[in-house]
Formats: sequence, C-alpha cells, structure tokens
Amino acid sequence: MSRHKRPRGGAAQATDNDLIYGAHAVTAALDNPARRPVRLWATHNALERVQGAAKRANVPVEAVKPPELDRRLGAGAVHQGLLLETAPLPARTLADHSGSGPLIVLDQISDPHNVGSILRSAAAFGAQALIMTQRHSPATTGVLAKAASGALEHVPVIRVVNLARALDDIADMGYLRIGLDGTADKALPDLLPHDKVALVLGAEGKGLRRLTRENCDVLANLTTAGPISSLNVSNAAAVALYILSSARQNPGDS
Amino acid sequence: MSRHKRPRGGAAQATDNDLIYGAHAVTAALDNPARRPVRLWATHNALERVQGAAKRANVPVEAVKPPELDRRLGAGAVHQGLLLETAPLPARTLADHSGSGPLIVLDQISDPHNVGSILRSAAAFGAQALIMTQRHSPATTGVLAKAASGALEHVPVIRVVNLARALDDIADMGYLRIGLDGTADKALPDLLPHDKVALVLGAEGKGLRRLTRENCDVLANLTTAGPISSLNVSNAAAVALYILSSARQNPGDS
Repeated sequence: MSRHKRPRGGAAQATDNDLIYGAHAVTAALDNPARRPVRLWATHNALERVQGAAKRANVPVEAVKPPELDRRLGAGAVHQGLLLETAPLPARTLADHSGSGPLIVLDQISDPHNVGSILRSAAAFGAQALIMTQRHSPATTGVLAKAASGALEHVPVIRVVNLARALDDIADMGYLRIGLDGTADKALPDLLPHDKVALVLGAEGKGLRRLTRENCDVLANLTTAGPISSLNVSNAAAVALYILSSARQNPGDS
Repeated sequence: MSRHKRPRGGAAQATDNDLIYGAHAVTAALDNPARRPVRLWATHNALERVQGAAKRANVPVEAVKPPELDRRLGAGAVHQGLLLETAPLPARTLADHSGSGPLIVLDQISDPHNVGSILRSAAAFGAQALIMTQRHSPATTGVLAKAASGALEHVPVIRVVNLARALDDIADMGYLRIGLDGTADKALPDLLPHDKVALVLGAEGKGLRRLTRENCDVLANLTTAGPISSLNVSNAAAVALYILSSARQNPGDS
C-alpha cells in the first residue's frame, strides 16, 4: 500500500484515482452511478463495445493504440483495449451496509488476484459486503478490479483499521462469525443454515491470526477428501459462499 | 506451447526439463518417486526446510542467494528460495488412469494460474485425473506448478491431441460428461449423485467450444444468485468439485 497511500484529506490528486482496465471491469465502472469517471482511454475496436456506457457516464474518451495501454499498465495487464481513470468509490463503513447475504471478512489477504476473485464470487453468490483491513490489503484498483470482473461495483468494500474491533461490531450486529480453518473439527455445512453469517478468511500459509481466530464464534473446515487438503484462498471462499448460498436456498437439507 | 514444445524422441535436453519453484511445489516434487530430479538451487534458509526430501531424492544441491533465483525466474515469481530442475513426469494416457473420483476435462484453458489452481482443488476433492489438449494448454511447470502447490505430483495430467475424440473415449469408459455452462437450465446438484462423472470446463469468456459442448451428455450451471453470475474458472471448478464430492459422501441429500 505504501506507494499507493492516499492523503488523509486535502484536494484530490491525479494519483488518488483508480485505474481500471479490462472489458468487464471498465463497463461495470461506467455503469455504476456512484463512480465519477475522469477519462477513458480506448482502442478503436474496444470503444465500440463500451460507447453507449461511456456516453451515459459522460466521460471524455481518448483514442489510443494498444501499445500505449501496454506502456501505461505493463505488458502483463490484459486490458482488452480499455483503461478508465476514475475517482475511487466513496469510503464505506460497517454502519452503511444493508441487505441480506453473508459478510466476508479478510484477515490480511494481500494478493490482489485472490481478493479480486473473492469479490467476483461474492457478487455471484449474493454476499453483502467484503471487509478488510486498511493496511496489508491490496488497493481496490488495477489487478484487483480486473480479477473482480465488475464485482467491485456491486459488492461494497469496507476498510477497517482494526479487524478484531470490527469483528466485535459484527457480533453486536447479530452475525455468527465463522472462521475458515482447514484443521477445524466442524464442517461448515453442519453449522448451517444460519440467518446471518460472517465468513472470516486468512491468508494462504499464515491462515487466521491468533486475535482474529479468538474473535470468531466458531471455526469450520470445507470437508476435503484428497491427498492435498488446502485450497487456494479464493477457491476456498467460492466453495464456502456456495455452501452458505445453498443452505439459504434449501434450509431443510442439513 | 510452441516455444516449450518437446522433441518427439531423442536424448533429453536441458530445455526439456521442468522448472519447479516454491516450497510446496518443490517439496512435493522431491517426494514424488516418479520424478527424476536433476538439480536443486536453494537459499541457505530454504534448504533447511527441504534438506530431508532432497537427500531422499538424491538430488545435487547448489546454494544460491535469492537474487540469483529472481534473475532466473523473473521478479514476479514467488520462489521462496527454492528452484528444482527435474525431468518431466512420464506422459499419461486415458488408458493408464485408475481409481475413483471425477475426471476433469479442460477445453483450452490457457492461463497457467487457473489450471494450477484447478489441479490443487482436484487434489483436495479427490479427482482422478485432469485431461487437457496438447495445444492451447499451459506447460505443467513454473507458474502452473506453483499455483498447484504440489498437486501436480498427485493428480495425473493427461494431454490429448483431440478433445472431442477423448470425450468419446470417456463416454465409452462409462462416464457421464457434464459440461459447466452458466446459461444451462439444469443445476449441477440435481444431476447427482452419479457413479462416474467427467466435468468439462471451458475458458473464461469463450466457454465451451461448439464441438466440446456437443460431446457432453448434459450441461449444468452452479446456481448462483447475485448480480454477477459468472465465476472465475478455477472458482467454478472448485465449487463443482465440492458439489461432486459432497454428493458422493451424502448420496441421500439430493
């Protein structure tokens, strides 16, 4: 985060803005009325795909050749001819959130691909919000936005200073805080259905920190059976969100 | 594949070998008796972690500093101080496979991170083998091996020239070929339990090719509910493998 840190106050600077690339991510950002887009760079072919959305968002468009986007984003970025500079989404707090569906709480998951994929699964399975720490979490732009494939515009991301305190607040709001842990005795499906669930996930390798673990009501595993028991964290999140979603839909099953 | 193509026969060349990095991937490769490891580069700290496995595998060890591994692998590779050069695993065919559990069939999924993650989920949920095309599929080394986190040593990878023909053979072997498709009418859990399942997955965006689709017995979706219906392909694979695995364990549920 250090190089992308935003100033605490004061006027917005160019470097404060999000850079969002890729067809799904850019289209979803243009379609999000909460965004204030600044400028769209688009190749001739890609512009056709988003022309309507760009017009509705009233964003200035600059025609570019693909190498110009490669240069701005680095050769590894699959930009699909589209790069949007936009003001970041307004900051959210736990008090803002509303709606049903589970909360997802990330304990210092730093890989932007993984967090983006988790957001995408969160949108697919109707999660309500994603909570992560201000530090040791990736910026909600670039790689994360691309991996989220538009989900950044649908699932509110809430950044908190202190995760243990946030977990306290979440308990006060009536949520059962379930920490995912491959070594737990209980299987996630056996704890369901439950009205309000907050799913707590730790980073690959490190897992949940001690204080995070102590601030969960219960730890649960995902009943794997093969020679390797650990899943990639975004895959674990997808499976857990599926389990929560199917327990809500078929409350009689478990 | 073109730059990594292996000669059809003849003596093994240095470029034929797999380069495997990262603690889990290297440890699993050293522990796999089917491997013929050539050389291990290890930093002082990392070597402590794998010394026993390296000795059992009887592989020459070369001490290196981390920047040397960065230089060999590129700055983005999370090598954790370990790089193993090893002969590739022996090629497998459909005829070799054995054991229970589902087959996974990939239709031109080219991203090595995704294929590696799918292998890792395959190992976690007891899949039997992963089948992919010789062309338009990533090499089973480097990034794929790292994302697989050791699963490459547990789940046989079978490369086929023609996927439609392989799907024919799979049908002859008594498998129900289920193609995952977000637009399908049927939900995957409703088709289960079933003794022998081959799960067929297409690439992000493109999905299953027409001929692949025609060679499936049935198409199924993953019952998502939120504002975005599509999952990252490795997340879709993890959810589907979980569904297959829990249907095998609790055949009465659906």
